[in-house]
Amino acid sequence: MSLPTTLPEPVIPRLVGGPTLRWGVLAPGFIAGVFASTLHRNTDQRIAAVASRSAERAETFARSHGIDRSYDDYRALVDDPGIDIVYVAAPHTEHLALATLALEAGKHVLVEKPIAASADEARRIAEAARAAGRFAMEAMHTRFHPRMTVIERLLADGALGELRLVQAELGLGNVPVDPTSRLYDPALGGGAALDLGVYPLWFHDFVLGAPTRLDVSGTLAVTGVEDQWNATLHHDDGATGEIAATMRTWTPSHAAIGGAEGRIHLDSRHPQPGGFTVYDVRNQPVSRFDDETGVVGTDGLCRQAAWAAQHIADGLLESPLHPLATSIRVLETVDGVRAGLGAAPIGEDAA
Amino acid sequence: MSLPTTLPEPVIPRLVGGPTLRWGVLAPGFIAGVFASTLHRNTDQRIAAVASRSAERAETFARSHGIDRSYDDYRALVDDPGIDIVYVAAPHTEHLALATLALEAGKHVLVEKPIAASADEARRIAEAARAAGRFAMEAMHTRFHPRMTVIERLLADGALGELRLVQAELGLGNVPVDPTSRLYDPALGGGAALDLGVYPLWFHDFVLGAPTRLDVSGTLAVTGVEDQWNATLHHDDGATGEIAATMRTWTPSHAAIGGAEGRIHLDSRHPQPGGFTVYDVRNQPVSRFDDETGVVGTDGLCRQAAWAAQHIADGLLESPLHPLATSIRVLETVDGVRAGLGAAPIGEDAA
Repeated sequence: MSLPTTLPEPVIPRLVGGPTLRWGVLAPGFIAGVFASTLHRNTDQRIAAVASRSAERAETFARSHGIDRSYDDYRALVDDPGIDIVYVAAPHTEHLALATLALEAGKHVLVEKPIAASADEARRIAEAARAAGRFAMEAMHTRFHPRMTVIERLLADGALGELRLVQAELGLGNVPVDPTSRLYDPALGGGAALDLGVYPLWFHDFVLGAPTRLDVSGTLAVTGVEDQWNATLHHDDGATGEIAATMRTWTPSHAAIGGAEGRIHLDSRHPQPGGFTVYDVRNQPVSRFDDETGVVGTDGLCRQAAWAAQHIADGLLESPLHPLATSIRVLETVDGVRAGLGAAPIGEDAA
Repeated sequence: MSLPTTLPEPVIPRLVGGPTLRWGVLAPGFIAGVFASTLHRNTDQRIAAVASRSAERAETFARSHGIDRSYDDYRALVDDPGIDIVYVAAPHTEHLALATLALEAGKHVLVEKPIAASADEARRIAEAARAAGRFAMEAMHTRFHPRMTVIERLLADGALGELRLVQAELGLGNVPVDPTSRLYDPALGGGAALDLGVYPLWFHDFVLGAPTRLDVSGTLAVTGVEDQWNATLHHDDGATGEIAATMRTWTPSHAAIGGAEGRIHLDSRHPQPGGFTVYDVRNQPVSRFDDETGVVGTDGLCRQAAWAAQHIADGLLESPLHPLATSIRVLETVDGVRAGLGAAPIGEDAA
């Protein structure tokens, strides 16, 4: 097919008035606060309980987000019969343990990205979900923004012709070089692969799937975690991904798909909601998608919750949009990036 | 210094009313036509003669650009006493021979980019220029656009802090996969390194200078020239360049500089004139440069001629903005990219 001048409609689940779940939050840190805020502001999903190892921390979070129950014990929350789904917001290195705890208690789980600190750990979460017969999904909110559902359709239609080059990168410039911070700590899963790389690597996977070969280079911080890297992801048909992440500087944080018949350039920053432009074979813009929902920035996190609720109402154990196999595949590449750079072991192995 | 909210003024030589030269054009192909058009439309530099191996081709070019004299012999043009400077617009593989011919005849030269098909050939042009005591410059028009003179000043002032990441890439999607075309012909210097790569590699050099190590990967066309590649350019202080070029698809063709204290994002496509935005440590835009001269697109080629005329009037044998050492350095990286990919030998070696 040739490039459409009229784009397909985005697929958008209802934020209000659709299926709802009673959410429990494990490990209420920064990202959990963002999630809770957007959930309560934009949807009728409700957080019913929160648990932290610190009672005070749990109570403060509950109070500031209007949550009824708070626990100083993770098990108490996963055993709470008034909870349908557990949102795991702990550091990456605790995802496997906490997701498994929740699944074995019979809860569905939404696990912050990356779903685990390695592909192997992600596989173990998938096994635990299958064994428990419960829904499990990585909180890759990017996948659920309206523009991605339109791009998905364009790619499925072959609108860009033979795909040649996926470019995606992400930079975070406000990370002080602080060996004592989580982002620089291998024991807590720090580094520019797990924290940042999952976004551009997910985008690459979304377009081209798993690469057959990986060339990577970059630099390591004094703590041994990768602080800046570039990777070229090769596919047997000659298509490549040019992927980068850095926690040493801001970047345009752009994402683009180059095909023989056209290209798509996403508005920055690609992990968040936004629009995109389609260019033709003369590199002239031919169509434009704007996200007109009004859900912008970190408010976009509410969509993954609405989608999870819809999937669970549909009786699904995985998201067809973002199945566990995708999370595992992306983490295989993350593992490859870290191994290629000689980065420090993550988690307990780091001790 | 911290990020300036008011930017330095661009350095712009007069297009009209400054020093003028009488230009001779060797090998009037596509790029020579673009150059002649913008020169005559925007400046009072004048093309006085043109030479092609084909008398008809030379006459047609002369007629369509209002040029007095045409020659069917390169030597006749370089011996023309009414010519001050020769613009060499032949395929890359002829640059060395034609630039040397002109220099030895006592002419100044402006040589299309890349200045030669390899760093070694570029060195021989530099030697010929020194021996002849004549001005020589690569037609890297990008260097002379107003925005680059502003960015140069910001970098010299250290406005971005420690530099971490240069990103630059260039894609051309309208190149049919045609083994008989020049772009795919190693004998004529085809491939995505010499034709396209010089722009992002020059930009990298402009910001960070010569890398100490190069990692490259990509694909080769059936003719053995590289058709798509990515390279990571490493520097001893941990800064890297993420550079790519492809003749298989359009890309955003963006260029950006990431520093610890801020970043600069150039408007696409970076080889042409345009503006840029400066972002602060919170990734918020703090200042914006717009090129308000009205010289846009390929019309930007006229500036390199105005600069060359100014430099020569100043008694210089090289451009302080774009000295021959820079052209040689960039070609060393081009050589490294081609060698790293196992690309076919260029020029006579390709036969």
